[in-house]
Amino acid sequence: MIDGGLVTGLAIYRTAIAPEWIDYNGHVRDAYYGLMASLAVDALMDRIGIGAHYRKQSGCTLYTVEMHMHYLREIGVRDTVDVKARILGADSKRIHAALELTCGESEETAAACEMMLLHVCQTPTVHTAPFPDRVAAAPAELQRPTASLPAAAPGSRRMELIRR
Amino acid sequence: MIDGGLVTGLAIYRTAIAPEWIDYNGHVRDAYYGLMASLAVDALMDRIGIGAHYRKQSGCTLYTVEMHMHYLREIGVRDTVDVKARILGADSKRIHAALELTCGESEETAAACEMMLLHVCQTPTVHTAPFPDRVAAAPAELQRPTASLPAAAPGSRRMELIRR
Repeated sequence: MIDGGLVTGLAIYRTAIAPEWIDYNGHVRDAYYGLMASLAVDALMDRIGIGAHYRKQSGCTLYTVEMHMHYLREIGVRDTVDVKARILGADSKRIHAALELTCGESEETAAACEMMLLHVCQTPTVHTAPFPDRVAAAPAELQRPTASLPAAAPGSRRMELIRR
Repeated sequence: MIDGGLVTGLAIYRTAIAPEWIDYNGHVRDAYYGLMASLAVDALMDRIGIGAHYRKQSGCTLYTVEMHMHYLREIGVRDTVDVKARILGADSKRIHAALELTCGESEETAAACEMMLLHVCQTPTVHTAPFPDRVAAAPAELQRPTASLPAAAPGSRRMELIRR
């Protein structure tokens, strides 16, 4: 399941930049860093066995309950972005994932993101549910080699304006 | 400059939901909550005198350096989202803003977001810069009536998976 790219995390997603992601500042709008992270979580779900087939069959999925992003570098329309993932924690219903976005061959960290993801079943009404046995071990399996990898950027924290 | 909607913040932005924001879970994808927040910051920039005209004339703008989002309710394709803003802090170069997204007439909080925004000038190369005198007072003016308003949702915090 681990396929390299483990210097700062598991390589899970790569994307070009869509021109409509560029804002009036001439770089990717903040929200589209979030879209790249979100699409990388879709790839992570595929990896741990809760992709499209699972969702259709079970009626269950992941909801994002919290997200923190540090914006570290501008991303331009000609960049290619790679996303690496680390699993910082997991329990019967939740995955705490860290994502790092890097730009092209420079491998400079463009953004660092943490997400808290919650397993829910949508039928008959939306409710939280433990991961089924056949996928329950997968987040922990990814956590073991990735959780202790050095973070390329600051982790999540309380946001505050400290006077300098 | 304050025009009502001050129960939980200054009403600054309203949007319908674009169909392409809906994901396989049948609700707005997490990243598009961020897009609504980002577009609301554009509206906030207009309010404090650093909108499109200012950006063009000065070569200066705001960059987002950090963002935290709590996802509290699902948003559907037929919803209308209102965004209210509070200014939690401001100094010569930075604005710490809190945004609350509510859905339609129910006024239920769908998401709560905090952003740290940094004033930069893009020419000759990107560098941080103090707000010019004519706009420097505006963030503080908005902070005075909004900073102490009760938050409708948890503020930013360190993310961690606490075993329950």
